[in-house]
Amino acid sequence: MKARSRSKTHSLLTDQVSLPAGFSFASACAGIKASGRPDLALVEASPGTAAAALFTRNRVVAAPLVVGRASLASSRGQIRAVIVNSGNANCATGKSGIQACRQVCREVGKLLGVPQTQVFPSSTGIIGVRLPVDKIISRLPEVVGLRAATEQGVTSFAHAIMTTDKRPKFASAEFRLGKLMVKLLGIAKGAGMIHPQMATMLVYLFSDIVATPAELKRSLRHACEDTFNAISIDGDTSTNDTVLLLASGHSGMHLNDPAKPLFLSGLQQVCQSLAEQIVADGEGVEHVIRLSIEQAKNRQEARQIARTVAHSLLVKTAWAGADPNWGRILAAVGRSGIAINPGRINIMIGDQPVCRGGVACVFDEKWAHQVLSQPSSEIRILLGRGRIAADFLTTDLTSEYVRVNADYST
Amino acid sequence: MKARSRSKTHSLLTDQVSLPAGFSFASACAGIKASGRPDLALVEASPGTAAAALFTRNRVVAAPLVVGRASLASSRGQIRAVIVNSGNANCATGKSGIQACRQVCREVGKLLGVPQTQVFPSSTGIIGVRLPVDKIISRLPEVVGLRAATEQGVTSFAHAIMTTDKRPKFASAEFRLGKLMVKLLGIAKGAGMIHPQMATMLVYLFSDIVATPAELKRSLRHACEDTFNAISIDGDTSTNDTVLLLASGHSGMHLNDPAKPLFLSGLQQVCQSLAEQIVADGEGVEHVIRLSIEQAKNRQEARQIARTVAHSLLVKTAWAGADPNWGRILAAVGRSGIAINPGRINIMIGDQPVCRGGVACVFDEKWAHQVLSQPSSEIRILLGRGRIAADFLTTDLTSEYVRVNADYST
Repeated sequence: MKARSRSKTHSLLTDQVSLPAGFSFASACAGIKASGRPDLALVEASPGTAAAALFTRNRVVAAPLVVGRASLASSRGQIRAVIVNSGNANCATGKSGIQACRQVCREVGKLLGVPQTQVFPSSTGIIGVRLPVDKIISRLPEVVGLRAATEQGVTSFAHAIMTTDKRPKFASAEFRLGKLMVKLLGIAKGAGMIHPQMATMLVYLFSDIVATPAELKRSLRHACEDTFNAISIDGDTSTNDTVLLLASGHSGMHLNDPAKPLFLSGLQQVCQSLAEQIVADGEGVEHVIRLSIEQAKNRQEARQIARTVAHSLLVKTAWAGADPNWGRILAAVGRSGIAINPGRINIMIGDQPVCRGGVACVFDEKWAHQVLSQPSSEIRILLGRGRIAADFLTTDLTSEYVRVNADYST
Repeated sequence: MKARSRSKTHSLLTDQVSLPAGFSFASACAGIKASGRPDLALVEASPGTAAAALFTRNRVVAAPLVVGRASLASSRGQIRAVIVNSGNANCATGKSGIQACRQVCREVGKLLGVPQTQVFPSSTGIIGVRLPVDKIISRLPEVVGLRAATEQGVTSFAHAIMTTDKRPKFASAEFRLGKLMVKLLGIAKGAGMIHPQMATMLVYLFSDIVATPAELKRSLRHACEDTFNAISIDGDTSTNDTVLLLASGHSGMHLNDPAKPLFLSGLQQVCQSLAEQIVADGEGVEHVIRLSIEQAKNRQEARQIARTVAHSLLVKTAWAGADPNWGRILAAVGRSGIAINPGRINIMIGDQPVCRGGVACVFDEKWAHQVLSQPSSEIRILLGRGRIAADFLTTDLTSEYVRVNADYST
């Protein structure tokens, strides 16, 4: 109790990078992206770093996920390096894709003097094209030589994992307990294909807390539930989604009481910030919508309704026009598969009721249009079924999304 | 057997209207549509006409569906008239919406001298706006006076039920058995919001066969399963979807063996033609895609996979660009919820394999692009799980769809 009363509440630093000790970062241009932009990114982690990861629930998984999952198992959650390429997903590439991925990990291991199974791989980009292993391997000495425990290193890493992202994505948090301080840093890429249960979303989370892989896994599950699993841009789920959490132990603070709630809260805040950045930077996104599903019987039905509304093309296109067409929202709720009673549903746009008891009510349409014209706005759907609420972050669907995605591989 | 050998196989007449005896049609302009186009449509059916209907599975249902369902129950499937308005869905309009709908039915009943519960109502258009009853009622004498058992009447009816449809939609079939001939006519409206389990789809099917309401209901269920329930434009399901089948009995032929298979086949062909017309005329549709899901364990999983692929924004936008990006199709199959083995999946665009055993195979990309550039093309997904196949008709997602739907109510 004493320790807790002395603790400073964790704080979320959005603009500054708070770099946990024990990690160094670098990037290089391997020529995988046609644009010639950085497409190879490396993290080196100090000895004793523990790791846990969550992967896509898609049945079709890319080679690096197969390799990374196996490596985490055989190294018992000990990870010494992360190697990421963008521009190629190394997915639907068969056995040769697996071999290519292992070859890259082996070469990174050689250069850093660590076992191949302690090198964690990720890839993101087009599906079904052979990974250009030679291009990657020829650049590994360069990227290894450049690694640095600096903010610049972090920034270069964040840029090199981007695909159609417009902005790099970071978030940091830190908390103090007695004389010890724990830092948390998250780096993500997102853009299209973002959906609950992961997305073409690569997220790397770093901390200097002392923790076992099992403790990290539990923390990660907890933090993802209301953050990365409560966002959606287009409803698609990538074959490559990965969230990796690494803990170097350099802070000297152990992940148990009283540090645990502070760590979990910091981790959740970092994930929430990254989730929001991912949604706001979704392909062609002009409007971010926070759906608040209230008065549900349980979280599951709240989520199911949120997803149905968030994935309705008619709803998403109405949002693109900042159109307060609540009838489409009501219709989406009605087909969600939940046995809602339309007569008990209230819908609010911003703080204005637009539908009461499933029926049109008089409202200021111009004001509702104004609210929805903002970059970010809130729509509340009150179900009149129970007491549970859940938030869900989603976006509009614009002509720009169609343009970005209508001509990707050809 | 003799009767069957003498029977002429049913034939599907796409361009000609084959008008079953016992029905007359009319339309009028009631000023519900801002455009001033026809928006009121009437069918009168002769005494003794039996009816059956299927409605949307959306929990939010429009007033005419509540009224129509109740009328079918209380009249025991006897229907003497159908009154349809476009431009207003009379949905989310509460008790006054129900009253408005009943008032329209009552007035039609008075003018035709039939009970109010034998007048079947439909509405389509914007949700949440009060039905302009007075406008409708003031035009009822005109539309009743205009009714005619002519092709022109049918055409005017088909035009008046349109919303964002570009073309009216009809299909006819007929078959002969001995000296008797049965005619089938279908009229539909579709456009956006088209989804399995109905859509903002109004379909009216007319025949002169002799049948009970229960027989009609079974026939209708059977015919819808592989037609209207196997199409999707945007995955949304309307609050107003209705398929109504009316049988006047004027042909003198009873719906039992040997007429039954001929009638079912004719009905299915009419529904299939209307389903195809609806998809091809979907909002902003440039490419119609026939998904053939093969080697499934059962129809249910084939459908679930088809729907996931058909609703994937990444897949639909790739189709807009005639992009043979099969990786997105594979990724959609992977997240369908079916425990597919990616290593057994083959995908074909037209007659060209593009993915074998879940892995990229060499193919002529230009040719695949050519195939997908056609107004209509086929993609086959072979699951390697069983022997069941199911077709599913869907469309691309274009910037035009976004444009049409981003600014509807404001």
